[in-house]
Amino acid sequence: MEAEATRILVGVNESSLKGYPHPSISSRTAFEWTLAKIIRSNTAGFKLLFLHAQIPDEDGFDDMDSIYASPEDFQSMKQRDKIRGLHLLEYFVGRCHQLGICCEAWIKKGDPKEVMCSEVKRVNPDILVVGSRGLGPFQRVFVGTVSEFCVKHADCPVITIKRKADEAPQDPVDD
Amino acid sequence: MEAEATRILVGVNESSLKGYPHPSISSRTAFEWTLAKIIRSNTAGFKLLFLHAQIPDEDGFDDMDSIYASPEDFQSMKQRDKIRGLHLLEYFVGRCHQLGICCEAWIKKGDPKEVMCSEVKRVNPDILVVGSRGLGPFQRVFVGTVSEFCVKHADCPVITIKRKADEAPQDPVDD
Repeated sequence: MEAEATRILVGVNESSLKGYPHPSISSRTAFEWTLAKIIRSNTAGFKLLFLHAQIPDEDGFDDMDSIYASPEDFQSMKQRDKIRGLHLLEYFVGRCHQLGICCEAWIKKGDPKEVMCSEVKRVNPDILVVGSRGLGPFQRVFVGTVSEFCVKHADCPVITIKRKADEAPQDPVDD
Repeated sequence: MEAEATRILVGVNESSLKGYPHPSISSRTAFEWTLAKIIRSNTAGFKLLFLHAQIPDEDGFDDMDSIYASPEDFQSMKQRDKIRGLHLLEYFVGRCHQLGICCEAWIKKGDPKEVMCSEVKRVNPDILVVGSRGLGPFQRVFVGTVSEFCVKHADCPVITIKRKADEAPQDPVDD
């Protein structure tokens, strides 16, 4: 009697404290919330789509000490970024596999807020779930928030899941 | 194995075209979306809470032709408003009853956006679902939107469900 599965796109990123392969606190919170409050025991009724927007510039920071002497060096760097992103997705796909939830995951290079909205257009999910650090207005001015942008511009219903206060790191901009 | 039911608060109002007991197009869309995409066949996993914010002034318009000669006249007007609001809630409660979904419904007088946020504080739902007419920026300046206010101020995750374009009445401000 069940119709086609509800397709939930979840935006995930790496932790700013621990980096790959660790998911950020807010990504993990958004994912766990979706499992507990929406999917519940109805694992067959939903399909999760994990999208990791990889920021090209930011990744470059880790490569400050590297020496680039040939085009191949850049190639190997790109390859490394890809492998790191894959490790992040592995966490979410692994959890879904354990729980018996159908899923797909992929990486897209670019500005996370733009990537989210363009991928919503492309894959047409029923819901977009994004985590949020729950920053105050003052902090938001400097760091911007992907979730606010998506709520305004994504072509599907968006749920923003705020990080719990007791899970916030010392610097709330970290995640 | 199922934990406590997920409690979804749904803001509902009457149609601006047909009035009570007819729900607005966007309320109905939000409700039907919640059934189809979130609850699905898992009727035992969810509890729906219907909140109807009744605007005291607006209701008064219908009484322009009435004559108020005694305090009892005002009493009977208030009584009539209440009965109308109850008819609206009856629609949603009736649908839930048919589907076997546990629910509660109530009326609260006041400005819908304030009422929504204060009731979220009071009943602490897992999710707030609100319909939206999907007005453009120009129209929004004049009519304000309850959904935008809730997304910013409600103390729980909020899902805004936009009315489908083909369901919009001739004047998109109507609902």
